[in-house]
Amino acid sequence: MPERSATKSKILATSLALFNNEGESNISSVDIASVIGISPGNLYYHYKGKDEIILALFEDFEEEIRQVLSAPINAPLNMADNWVYLYIIFEEIFDFRFFYRNQAELVGRIPTLRTKFANILALKERTALSLLSKLHSDGHLHFDEGEKQALAGRIAQHFTFWLQYHDLRYGTSPPKSLIDQGVFMTLVQITPYWKDEKGYAALLQEFAEDKV
Amino acid sequence: MPERSATKSKILATSLALFNNEGESNISSVDIASVIGISPGNLYYHYKGKDEIILALFEDFEEEIRQVLSAPINAPLNMADNWVYLYIIFEEIFDFRFFYRNQAELVGRIPTLRTKFANILALKERTALSLLSKLHSDGHLHFDEGEKQALAGRIAQHFTFWLQYHDLRYGTSPPKSLIDQGVFMTLVQITPYWKDEKGYAALLQEFAEDKV
Repeated sequence: MPERSATKSKILATSLALFNNEGESNISSVDIASVIGISPGNLYYHYKGKDEIILALFEDFEEEIRQVLSAPINAPLNMADNWVYLYIIFEEIFDFRFFYRNQAELVGRIPTLRTKFANILALKERTALSLLSKLHSDGHLHFDEGEKQALAGRIAQHFTFWLQYHDLRYGTSPPKSLIDQGVFMTLVQITPYWKDEKGYAALLQEFAEDKV
Repeated sequence: MPERSATKSKILATSLALFNNEGESNISSVDIASVIGISPGNLYYHYKGKDEIILALFEDFEEEIRQVLSAPINAPLNMADNWVYLYIIFEEIFDFRFFYRNQAELVGRIPTLRTKFANILALKERTALSLLSKLHSDGHLHFDEGEKQALAGRIAQHFTFWLQYHDLRYGTSPPKSLIDQGVFMTLVQITPYWKDEKGYAALLQEFAEDKV
């Protein structure tokens, strides 16, 4: 992460918590200043308005998610590590969830976010492809190239809309257990391609009983 | 559809075209009046602002999509009708696509839309369940109840985020051929559960060569 003054760090941490919990569109920079206990002018001295704060937060998110997503591209994971790995992705998204509850509006309002978001989506697809290719070459999965591509796209889509689906369908704040559900729903998409059906279904069952 | 004056119908048709093609957030009620060639005051006499126009359009959309989505719940479809049926759903969504490119912002701004959207999402899940149950009871699909529920949820999610995924990933206006791709991506999610794998893969291949 970039080095920042204590005040800048405090502004970002407070903004992230407020955006995540109250919704980004409900929070103004005056709200942020008031929660921290500084004047709006002082806040403005550090960040010129809310969109600049959002861009700084996106920088943090981008750096972290890029590291996470690149891991299995750089060095294939063992099968047993996949669940933990998926959990880390969903947790990362959950930690910056305000970006995922209103993407279309954000990229419309802050044009530089559009390319950044598209690049992360493309990276998600590559990550999913790497995971699937490894499981395939290890002999666990059974599909053709077209099915693999389609499945990778679907997993990337699931990472991206998992929170928004919950919002639209249930209209409630996502509980932290939604992370487990996100992981589970990813695994359920992979199981039909599993060769040793019994073995994997049993693993999935275990995961489900443990977590969901 | 509710009976409306010629001017009201014209306002709605023009608004729908502008929202779909230019993006709802880029169009004001003054823009709409100007394209039709009436005064903003005249427009305001018919609809009190843009959100009232949006609600009237949603009423039309809701009536049509409810009819479409209820069809297989009321009377199960033959397998051969499924493709055409899916095509009709995607086409219906495409015709009112501005609702689907920015749902989170719309339901945030117009609270009555939130419940309406959630209800349509719930209906989509029921429709997908009906389609899958029929294919299951006809002996075409092989899955357990949990997998069926998860697949139905995923199909409903796909209907809902299909356009937004394209927007975020590619940043271009969706071409009409995106409808074929939406149908194809739905079918690809069902194929892994197909019992007679060969037969269905061949059908899918035919569909893909024909359409995508």
